[in-house]
Amino acid sequence: MSGTTPRPRPAIESMTAYTPGEQPGPGERFIKLNTNENPYPPSPRVMEAIRALDGEALRRYPNPMADGFRAVAARVHGVSPDMILAGNGSDEILAMVMRAFVGPGDVLAYPHPTYSLYPVLAEMAEVKVVEVPWGPAWSLPAQALIDTGARAIFFANPNAPSGTLVGPDQVRALADRFRGVLLVDEAYVDFAESDCLALVKSCPNVVISRTFSKGYSLAGLRFGYAVAAPSIIEAMAKVKDSYNCDALSMTAATAALEDQAHARGGWQAVREERERLAAELGRRGFAVIPSQANFLLATVPGGDAAALYAKLKAHGILIRYFAKPGLDDKVRITIGTREQNDALLAAL
Amino acid sequence: MSGTTPRPRPAIESMTAYTPGEQPGPGERFIKLNTNENPYPPSPRVMEAIRALDGEALRRYPNPMADGFRAVAARVHGVSPDMILAGNGSDEILAMVMRAFVGPGDVLAYPHPTYSLYPVLAEMAEVKVVEVPWGPAWSLPAQALIDTGARAIFFANPNAPSGTLVGPDQVRALADRFRGVLLVDEAYVDFAESDCLALVKSCPNVVISRTFSKGYSLAGLRFGYAVAAPSIIEAMAKVKDSYNCDALSMTAATAALEDQAHARGGWQAVREERERLAAELGRRGFAVIPSQANFLLATVPGGDAAALYAKLKAHGILIRYFAKPGLDDKVRITIGTREQNDALLAAL
Repeated sequence: MSGTTPRPRPAIESMTAYTPGEQPGPGERFIKLNTNENPYPPSPRVMEAIRALDGEALRRYPNPMADGFRAVAARVHGVSPDMILAGNGSDEILAMVMRAFVGPGDVLAYPHPTYSLYPVLAEMAEVKVVEVPWGPAWSLPAQALIDTGARAIFFANPNAPSGTLVGPDQVRALADRFRGVLLVDEAYVDFAESDCLALVKSCPNVVISRTFSKGYSLAGLRFGYAVAAPSIIEAMAKVKDSYNCDALSMTAATAALEDQAHARGGWQAVREERERLAAELGRRGFAVIPSQANFLLATVPGGDAAALYAKLKAHGILIRYFAKPGLDDKVRITIGTREQNDALLAAL
Repeated sequence: MSGTTPRPRPAIESMTAYTPGEQPGPGERFIKLNTNENPYPPSPRVMEAIRALDGEALRRYPNPMADGFRAVAARVHGVSPDMILAGNGSDEILAMVMRAFVGPGDVLAYPHPTYSLYPVLAEMAEVKVVEVPWGPAWSLPAQALIDTGARAIFFANPNAPSGTLVGPDQVRALADRFRGVLLVDEAYVDFAESDCLALVKSCPNVVISRTFSKGYSLAGLRFGYAVAAPSIIEAMAKVKDSYNCDALSMTAATAALEDQAHARGGWQAVREERERLAAELGRRGFAVIPSQANFLLATVPGGDAAALYAKLKAHGILIRYFAKPGLDDKVRITIGTREQNDALLAAL
């Protein structure tokens, strides 16, 4: 070797990367209730749309703004296309909000605990993080969030890993009093009883982030989108990769969004299984937080969540365990199919 | 409307976004010689591999490090898999190098003129740009690049829009004397007579960036990769989106890379057409820079490149015109199929 090994910049050397949930390798067979995928298959129209593409669609650059998708999403949500921006997963939507609105030395605030990607994105951008504990019964700590002086508030609704939901009236009250960008991360909203999408029509500082990973059974696709006022979308588009979405995923996401009937059927099935599984876990001594998402956060009887995680893994069932203060007596269980949930209950 | 319209951070408000080349809308028919796509179709194995996927492959999260692709790329290039990192297009590879190694206030240097995305990525990250003019006959201005005190040098090889190539010995000499990261952007290298990939085995500061957009006829796919020493790959992986590549594009890229025979056939055809088109343009009074890429930069007889661009567009032929000092008497023409090139020559 000749020359010098370059070191990453200090902010990167010291940061801890995001840790994705366990993904079993090829040939490993698990009942996978650990990373909140939808247990039901995507709409058959998705694979049909993909298979109808030819090589010519891949030879050329894709439409840089995903205009075909934007038109469909605008129609489905009753907004104009300039209020939609597509991303390479909703993770890229979060990154774009950060890059456009929050810079080195600025503050990002969020209620804690929540999605563990938020502090990773902040560290990368040399943004200061202020974590504000959730209020009693996972209520929104609105004033404390505003008092941080943040340039942006990120807020998962329903929240992960709690599964709890804040209603749109409370979110609007926060948006009205906050001078920065309020990102409402609605990754799990398809399983909830309300959403905040209508706020974008009257709140110029609210960004709604959506994904196809959960509600549309397309975690493998990496496709998400933002809904917000046109001036926000314009700023985000400036900082996106030049061609951030590929032709295959645009086609697939558009087909999935157009098949609302298929998606809604799956959401309803997940809700029914969620209520059944919560009741069954309660009967077995778990303290289960009522959930509006496609997972349950449950305190393990006796509190040894790490042992339960390990025992279930030995039985071929993966659930999520967080070795973190406040969470280390709990497990997060993704809602599976009826058969998968029955297997979990039998193993317990 | 209630609440406050938030403003982007100052670096974003003042920046100019990257402008992608013209992409005709659905139904518009052009001979498209403006954005350097490969004129030949991708390997038939690509569509076969995509069509063989089922919904289950999309329902689950993809492998976060694209390990299947890494194994194949490592074999093709004769390096270990930990020297490969996949990205959502090579544009994401460039962005990851920037995020990992170059921070606010640091300097990025590159020979100028070149790919217009480099300053956009720098502005976004509040990185200072020093543009160093190419040496005589598009030679590498190595000492001037080092003298900028840059944390990173980006360097397109072959360069765009000139199509010129710097040999590996000169690149190695620069790498040996430079203390920062030297990114060699080999987007067009499949059409060239040499490449710098072997340098990663002996230069700990060299990153090679590759893409499937040109050589593999997959611009619609958004898939690229880096080849570099393991410590560099590790730092870049820390700053990538959690799941940056989707299951469809990983599958397609892997199939394309495995079909080297198909790809090489296309590269050879492009080279032959490039030499023919260069000679024909020379015969018509154009001053054509000898090119190692899949495009030609040619000075228009009389110098009115804007008029030539407009006239050809009216004839249904798109080429690239840059309204920039030093380039505004030239056009950049992507090498098309024999039929497309004949149509261009007839129109001229």
